[in-house]
Amino acid sequence: MTVTSQRVFNFTAGEQGPWQIQSTTNVAGSPLPGASRLEVTANRRERTQSVPAWRLQGITSNDRYVTRAEKIALATRQPELGRSSATCAALIALRKQPAWWQLTQDERRAILEEQSNHIAIGMRYLPTIARRLYHCRDLADAQPFDFITWFEFAPQDTNAFDELLTALRRSVEWHFVEREVDIRMVQVDTI
Amino acid sequence: MTVTSQRVFNFTAGEQGPWQIQSTTNVAGSPLPGASRLEVTANRRERTQSVPAWRLQGITSNDRYVTRAEKIALATRQPELGRSSATCAALIALRKQPAWWQLTQDERRAILEEQSNHIAIGMRYLPTIARRLYHCRDLADAQPFDFITWFEFAPQDTNAFDELLTALRRSVEWHFVEREVDIRMVQVDTI
Repeated sequence: MTVTSQRVFNFTAGEQGPWQIQSTTNVAGSPLPGASRLEVTANRRERTQSVPAWRLQGITSNDRYVTRAEKIALATRQPELGRSSATCAALIALRKQPAWWQLTQDERRAILEEQSNHIAIGMRYLPTIARRLYHCRDLADAQPFDFITWFEFAPQDTNAFDELLTALRRSVEWHFVEREVDIRMVQVDTI
Repeated sequence: MTVTSQRVFNFTAGEQGPWQIQSTTNVAGSPLPGASRLEVTANRRERTQSVPAWRLQGITSNDRYVTRAEKIALATRQPELGRSSATCAALIALRKQPAWWQLTQDERRAILEEQSNHIAIGMRYLPTIARRLYHCRDLADAQPFDFITWFEFAPQDTNAFDELLTALRRSVEWHFVEREVDIRMVQVDTI
């Protein structure tokens, strides 16, 4: 009777999928189990793995923080996912402290951008690093993380990606992060 | 395996429930079928109706638009749901146009409050009209509405509630509403 939203995606780790997991780093809070492969599927096309190591769900949604000028600048520079050169991927799953969610919108924006330059930092790495944000916190099935961000880049841009992450993790915004897992992958040639 | 979020609620219309439906007004867009009773349940406590007329799902979440000053003013004045005197309820289900969701946060805030006084209008009717907002748009099961707002008030405050709605429906924000259903209920004494 119910229809799944077209904006919902599943991130399933186990022994299947086109992304070979190279590392799973538990940056903060409780860990996620290790796995060898990861698959990202739109919900209705999901293939079931017999024993997934874990599964996360996220939904794409409207922008929460960018201004019009930032949105235009991002749209001009940000690449689509799935570039053939971008054979490296990273999945960063985050949960923020309850204190973050008690802040008002203007307070969160001030921390995110005016104090932490989150949007400006990401912009510096466009179009090198492609990025898509998925929201998890307001799904009906309770999720262990608030956000999943998925990144794609070419192997030679791995250092640039690490720089981007280092800059974000040093920011005031990251004081509110209570759980973070950083998963790195490479695309496997599948026939 | 999955656990339902504690913030998810179901609104089930049919022949059961403590709220007797007095009217269902299809204000804009396609209608909802009529029903005689309505029940609001936290997901895990849901009782299944053999043939519900319809079921909507919503989730409470963090504030999206209020400033700190507005949040403090609201917290001081807004009553809890479930007051014994508040035997009337209204469910307003809304969907906004895609154009609304393409706006940036600051643009939406400017329309919602600086142009439409949505928060200020609601504040005028506190503590008379109790209110709770549920978000539907980003649930994994695709929902027909973006928001459900639930209101509770005493019978003698019905005119005040109608005034509140009239003011909101005249606002610039309402130009973005493409579907709206207005359901009025009274509480039934159940033994």
